[in-house]
Amino acid sequence: CRHLAFTDCGYWTTWLGGLCHWTGTRDYNPKQMAIREKVFNTIISCFKRHGAENIDTPVFELKETLTGKYGEDSKLIYDLKDQGGELLSLRYDLTVPFARYLAMNKVTNIKRYHIAKVYRRDNPAMTRGRYREFYQCDFDIAGQYDPMIPDAECLKIVHEILSELELGDFRIKVNDRRILDGMFAVCGVPDDKFRTICSTVDKLDKMSWEDVRSEMVKEKGLSEEAADQIGQYVSLQGGMDLAERLLQDAKMSQSKQACAGLTDMKQLFSYLQLFQVTDKVVFDLSLARGLDYYTGVIYEAILTQTGPVPVAAAQNGAGEKAEEGVSVGSVAGGGRYDGLVGMFDPKGRKVPCVGVSIGIERVFSIMEQKAEASAEKVRTTETQVMVASAQKNLLEERLRLTAELWNAGIKAEVMYKKNPKLLSQLQHCEDSGIPLVAILGEQELKDGVVKLRTVHSREEIDVSRAKLVEEIKRRTLDV
Amino acid sequence: CRHLAFTDCGYWTTWLGGLCHWTGTRDYNPKQMAIREKVFNTIISCFKRHGAENIDTPVFELKETLTGKYGEDSKLIYDLKDQGGELLSLRYDLTVPFARYLAMNKVTNIKRYHIAKVYRRDNPAMTRGRYREFYQCDFDIAGQYDPMIPDAECLKIVHEILSELELGDFRIKVNDRRILDGMFAVCGVPDDKFRTICSTVDKLDKMSWEDVRSEMVKEKGLSEEAADQIGQYVSLQGGMDLAERLLQDAKMSQSKQACAGLTDMKQLFSYLQLFQVTDKVVFDLSLARGLDYYTGVIYEAILTQTGPVPVAAAQNGAGEKAEEGVSVGSVAGGGRYDGLVGMFDPKGRKVPCVGVSIGIERVFSIMEQKAEASAEKVRTTETQVMVASAQKNLLEERLRLTAELWNAGIKAEVMYKKNPKLLSQLQHCEDSGIPLVAILGEQELKDGVVKLRTVHSREEIDVSRAKLVEEIKRRTLDV
Repeated sequence: CRHLAFTDCGYWTTWLGGLCHWTGTRDYNPKQMAIREKVFNTIISCFKRHGAENIDTPVFELKETLTGKYGEDSKLIYDLKDQGGELLSLRYDLTVPFARYLAMNKVTNIKRYHIAKVYRRDNPAMTRGRYREFYQCDFDIAGQYDPMIPDAECLKIVHEILSELELGDFRIKVNDRRILDGMFAVCGVPDDKFRTICSTVDKLDKMSWEDVRSEMVKEKGLSEEAADQIGQYVSLQGGMDLAERLLQDAKMSQSKQACAGLTDMKQLFSYLQLFQVTDKVVFDLSLARGLDYYTGVIYEAILTQTGPVPVAAAQNGAGEKAEEGVSVGSVAGGGRYDGLVGMFDPKGRKVPCVGVSIGIERVFSIMEQKAEASAEKVRTTETQVMVASAQKNLLEERLRLTAELWNAGIKAEVMYKKNPKLLSQLQHCEDSGIPLVAILGEQELKDGVVKLRTVHSREEIDVSRAKLVEEIKRRTLDV
Repeated sequence: CRHLAFTDCGYWTTWLGGLCHWTGTRDYNPKQMAIREKVFNTIISCFKRHGAENIDTPVFELKETLTGKYGEDSKLIYDLKDQGGELLSLRYDLTVPFARYLAMNKVTNIKRYHIAKVYRRDNPAMTRGRYREFYQCDFDIAGQYDPMIPDAECLKIVHEILSELELGDFRIKVNDRRILDGMFAVCGVPDDKFRTICSTVDKLDKMSWEDVRSEMVKEKGLSEEAADQIGQYVSLQGGMDLAERLLQDAKMSQSKQACAGLTDMKQLFSYLQLFQVTDKVVFDLSLARGLDYYTGVIYEAILTQTGPVPVAAAQNGAGEKAEEGVSVGSVAGGGRYDGLVGMFDPKGRKVPCVGVSIGIERVFSIMEQKAEASAEKVRTTETQVMVASAQKNLLEERLRLTAELWNAGIKAEVMYKKNPKLLSQLQHCEDSGIPLVAILGEQELKDGVVKLRTVHSREEIDVSRAKLVEEIKRRTLDV
């Protein structure tokens, strides 16, 4: 099996975060899972705090469902083999399946979260450690509401999650597709070039302005004058004040679209002030995002403390950024997509939506590094007590007691050996962080007690069998 | 989009449990997800109580990893399209990826659980509501241990989970591949027919003995005499006593393999007695299970109360039973597979394993029906309080208070309207089971208080802003 030969020759190695070169995916070991569970709990708690329901959709969709939704990235969609029946593809994100779900079930308003894996047929060799399978944690609000209130809540959620995960400082860039389109219009970009120029602007976080300008002019045939005008706008960053200034801008104010976007941007910032999150949010005209389906506000969160993140961590689960070799630190992205649901409705009925996707592969990597660096051991089980014996021929008594503990809801382990050594039983507790050992011996059985040993202090006391469960619960309350 | 046209003509309907005829999959709506979360919590709690770690593997594996592991069912494996690169297939179960994981990471002992979706290319038309994507909840113990101790723990786990889920009465059938093989040998089945005759025996839970006998003789070319001898054995059911009797059986005792299996079966029952689960466990010589990789003990749990389970619920996530139209009620299955890990190790190093898979699609269906039948409403959010107002122009104050609550860890919602009607705010609370409403008005703002309304009793009291968080926490402690 080449898969394994590969392991032996070291390509599936830890420095690549366990990436398998053949499949572009990775396994999660118990330690990674313990960290993953902690991250998920933080994220899910936040989603629930905001009143979100939970849905799930299948890992594959009809191929036609995904067609025409992802712009240039459509080539990265995984198709299933035609084995008879419909053509199917693995989901590329959770947004398109969500829109399909809303249309199919005629849902006109919902606030939901969805945490699941998505699939992108990147070339792992070229992209050095980006996974082809990775988690997205999506929160979306669908429904016809007053402008910018749900949009502001999405940003508040990003702020809460990134703060709680303690990943260091971060910034959330905000822009609006209508502002971009208006800007393109007043700068003289022909209508049919909006999307492709937008894709080029989207590269500003990993290419210099000169290279972006060159791509616009030489590859995409834009006039130098138009490119230079765009260059002036996309260098702008600010807050509500910038939105106000641009509303007064002689050129920008000629575009109705831009004005609508800028007015909403002002409104958005007023809500963000109420939510007290403006410290991290920047209105940034260079933010474009590549996906086709955005129609209004767009945003992206980046970590600004670039710690020693391994190459494998450069995955941007959140969206379409983070190309090979460039670690932009993007950990969340999203925006408003008011037209997507209508594409799945037989009568084209629209349902306005706004959402955010937390891309957590990078978060996992940072948490893993933190765990490595920390003296504290990551526990991979929650076992409270090990049922042990120092003497021979007590397997049956150990099993009987263990079952008693299980039945009382105690998390308990017992060694699967007839006569294990006490030392190896204690060693297992040390290794896996089990705080207590319930030791059985002939004398204890006669006396109707169990010797309860605290692993870290090595203290031992006799506890009557009848009070054992209570005593274990008391002692592991805050473990 | 045909997908949607299909919905409109009613094929994606609730009586099929939301099955999509085109993809053979289904969405989970928030109510289904709430039920699913509850079932998962029960199962995960049990796995953790038994000290299991958690791992995860990718949804697809190299095609060659799955080849030759599933016997006749291999035709149901989903392949990915060859888009360049390695040939990949969607996982068919969690056992083979687990074995691959152990070999690849050179893990020689672990107790782990894994909850994830698996994929089978059944024909949904023929199988009437079986899903092509469904969850399995696997618990496995890998390592060289004294006989039957981990095996007994797996059965204890099935007993605990099925009891806690309150699905009605159940039985766990147990057998051993070595007993089956020994039986085939002493009944005169040629060696090269063991596996295929085993597959036929496996159909005894959905075919009469006459039909099984006929398939053995006419299709598989077994002698009538051999078939009849098998017929006598496979009608036997019992406990430890049956194992003892068969050890004395003139014919059976001639097979070393059978004797080894029967001796272990006795040992297993002695441990099951200590675990106090023998009330539900039956040694049943007709249990065969179709998968190739089992080498020792095998088992399968069935629900014996056949309630009004819809056709869609006939899915047997647990294993390879439950063919079209026949609802055997199988909800868990597993066994010992000591040779599988060695198939993935370059040097063939073996790691003995035993495990169990809980197939929960059927469990979900039963829980869903229970929820439908019950007067109690299933909550799909955990929101504790709705921030509302009876007056106009208080959006900003509502948002400010909501953010305060979020920051204090309170699960709070606010309507995304500038001036929503109080009635519609209260109605939302009724609909989604939100127990409290924090009502803001001009007077309350002046007085520094909030009117806290209990939805079910309609009582209202003024609470000072400073004490609001505490009061909400107190009141929703047991909600």
